[in-house]
Amino acid sequence: MVQNKINASIITIGDELLIGQVIDTNSAWLAQELNKIGIWVKRRVAVGDVWDEIWTALDEESKHSKIILITGGLGPTADDITKPLLCKYFGGHLIENVDALENVKTIFSKYLNRPLLESNIKQALVPDMCTVLQNRNGTAPGMWFEKNGNIYVSLPGVPIEMKGIMADHVLPKLPSLFTLPCVLHRTLLTAGIGESFLSERIKDFEASLPSNIKLAYLPNFGLVKLRLTGTGSDEMAIRLEIDQLFKQLVVLVEDVMVIAEDKKLEEAIGILLRKNKWTMATAESCTGGYVAHLITSIPGSSAYFLGGVISYENTIKKEVLRVSEETLSTVGAVSEETVIQMANGVKNLMKTDYTVAISGVMGPAGGTEDKPVGTVWIAISGRTETIAKKYHVRFDRQKNIEVTALHALTMLRKMVLNDVSKSI
Amino acid sequence: MVQNKINASIITIGDELLIGQVIDTNSAWLAQELNKIGIWVKRRVAVGDVWDEIWTALDEESKHSKIILITGGLGPTADDITKPLLCKYFGGHLIENVDALENVKTIFSKYLNRPLLESNIKQALVPDMCTVLQNRNGTAPGMWFEKNGNIYVSLPGVPIEMKGIMADHVLPKLPSLFTLPCVLHRTLLTAGIGESFLSERIKDFEASLPSNIKLAYLPNFGLVKLRLTGTGSDEMAIRLEIDQLFKQLVVLVEDVMVIAEDKKLEEAIGILLRKNKWTMATAESCTGGYVAHLITSIPGSSAYFLGGVISYENTIKKEVLRVSEETLSTVGAVSEETVIQMANGVKNLMKTDYTVAISGVMGPAGGTEDKPVGTVWIAISGRTETIAKKYHVRFDRQKNIEVTALHALTMLRKMVLNDVSKSI
Repeated sequence: MVQNKINASIITIGDELLIGQVIDTNSAWLAQELNKIGIWVKRRVAVGDVWDEIWTALDEESKHSKIILITGGLGPTADDITKPLLCKYFGGHLIENVDALENVKTIFSKYLNRPLLESNIKQALVPDMCTVLQNRNGTAPGMWFEKNGNIYVSLPGVPIEMKGIMADHVLPKLPSLFTLPCVLHRTLLTAGIGESFLSERIKDFEASLPSNIKLAYLPNFGLVKLRLTGTGSDEMAIRLEIDQLFKQLVVLVEDVMVIAEDKKLEEAIGILLRKNKWTMATAESCTGGYVAHLITSIPGSSAYFLGGVISYENTIKKEVLRVSEETLSTVGAVSEETVIQMANGVKNLMKTDYTVAISGVMGPAGGTEDKPVGTVWIAISGRTETIAKKYHVRFDRQKNIEVTALHALTMLRKMVLNDVSKSI
Repeated sequence: MVQNKINASIITIGDELLIGQVIDTNSAWLAQELNKIGIWVKRRVAVGDVWDEIWTALDEESKHSKIILITGGLGPTADDITKPLLCKYFGGHLIENVDALENVKTIFSKYLNRPLLESNIKQALVPDMCTVLQNRNGTAPGMWFEKNGNIYVSLPGVPIEMKGIMADHVLPKLPSLFTLPCVLHRTLLTAGIGESFLSERIKDFEASLPSNIKLAYLPNFGLVKLRLTGTGSDEMAIRLEIDQLFKQLVVLVEDVMVIAEDKKLEEAIGILLRKNKWTMATAESCTGGYVAHLITSIPGSSAYFLGGVISYENTIKKEVLRVSEETLSTVGAVSEETVIQMANGVKNLMKTDYTVAISGVMGPAGGTEDKPVGTVWIAISGRTETIAKKYHVRFDRQKNIEVTALHALTMLRKMVLNDVSKSI
């Protein structure tokens, strides 16, 4: 279908991945970046720190892909066997690389203020048949190998180091070696509609898509992302085509759409608030600052987020947010009355257009017959009204916090949108 | 070395993993759980929603492992080809499963309050040669296949659904089918010492380890976990052996050890505070609630965490935390004076034993020549003293927030520990 489709495989080395002690975030980043330059990640494989398994993975992925990226196995500690293996696999021996040694010395003197150890100096040893890729964020250099027309790049497993080497050396070089197709994505975010209902609604659209455009559903607790991916050799043509189809899709889902970009819910809220010069604050009990964290993860959020109170203890609800003693002793902290008073309390304190207040039982302990684990009250106090709503979340503590935050942000966004439409 | 080592492979299906739009957290959980019952995950492979690639992955992993777990590809939307493929791979045809259909209906009436669509009913179709594994958290059932002495389990990709099916059906059944070795881990957490220095210090210990005990280093920004893994057939013997070696290790790293368990820094702090009936609160500017979120992610944290103030705007620093106007206008919000006043301010407000205050520039914007992006001041006000320290973090916004939070928690822990040692 598409000419010159270049496949890549990602091999991740490390027992920590196979026993589940570490979550692999490198692969997702690598896939995104390769995709942008038109390289398709065909397979991702994780293997342990075992000679034969790494060797087999190299053999197997060489059959699947032209580009093989290897992450991990380059740290200074003793269980690393990757470099000797690469030496043997590509034929050669380890030599000291002057630039890499210089880099190790610089990092130690500049950031670490400690003497060099033998294991650090060893990081500058590289197979003599590779091209060394300098690492500006750490001591282990990257290594570029070629064999039988395939390209192999070995990268450290520390994300910031891996990303630096990819950005400095690998991503700029790959497009000059292949004729790469153009791959474009357009993504939108919907809220409040299930994957199957969305699919039912847009099935005719989906069926009408040309073979070079794919639609994907990416569901996540009440939010579903829809992504169109177009592939072709002519960038202009594919851009025109995907833009036109994306417009059709937007019309079909307009009423449930949060934002017509690949952005998060909290980003969409930020854009709305900033555009209208409105501000917000939070009063969180059971989510313990997580909603504020989501909001402030967005660069520039200081333009609309003024602050928040985490009122975990009832004393703080009373003394800082002015929730009444009577409310707490009669209906309790997880109640409509309490969250409304929290929302109003933080509004008085911080003088914002909007406030979000949350109180609930996240578990595993703390549930009662009346208010079992998962009971949550959320209030939004806005420019003209205050609303409160009860939810039941049904997962573990961490997930309950995340889902509750999503509910709160969804409520907030609805009210802001409503105000935007009224003010037009 | 070890008899009856049973290998598993995890195959993850879905384009979203290959274009990096989703981070795979399922594999880590699966690996942890399999490890606990003595099954070793030999390989993890991610492939796209492509017939031939899934087929090839099944063929290849069948050679590597006796147990093949497949996640993803079972949602209600159209791009799913997994079920027809499994039908063909194992020989058979799709039939409607009565229990699975009943489950779909129950979930819709109980939680979703919406009519059933055809695509939802289709979820109850299963290959007729599999054992159906009911899904209590969603509509897609799991499926258990056997072929040539191997076991294949197909699971939905939604984490909560996958976990439920594993816990209900797969993890209880696997040990009855194999003679599994015993695998035990003991982990400790260190702070303030680099991986290479730690390795230098314990290299004799590491060299002396018997062949069935492995040591691994898991570094993460100033924190390094050390993990001993023992494998054997006699659980009692291996437990004795690993416990004894772990004791030796603890002695070697005692001065830099945070906790002698596989726990997070915030958990270690919680244990200390709870034991001493001490309390804490936070005053966060640039970390926007992230420190409070880490603390409150720990179940039972309400015993020692009373609350916090997120003082993003200077007005909030002044009016809620009582930072002086003069300080803000002379030395600014990112200064020793400000964080000390923030720490004292939240202490007056919340009456806790300890407070943590943070102010800095997380980027990408907001830096000045004087205070470039990455400049952070942290103060801890404790039972007897207040200390403040300046840091420079050097990553992207998200990572800067995380690293800053780690610095703050490390400072807090040191002071609490110091107080514990004084009160003995």
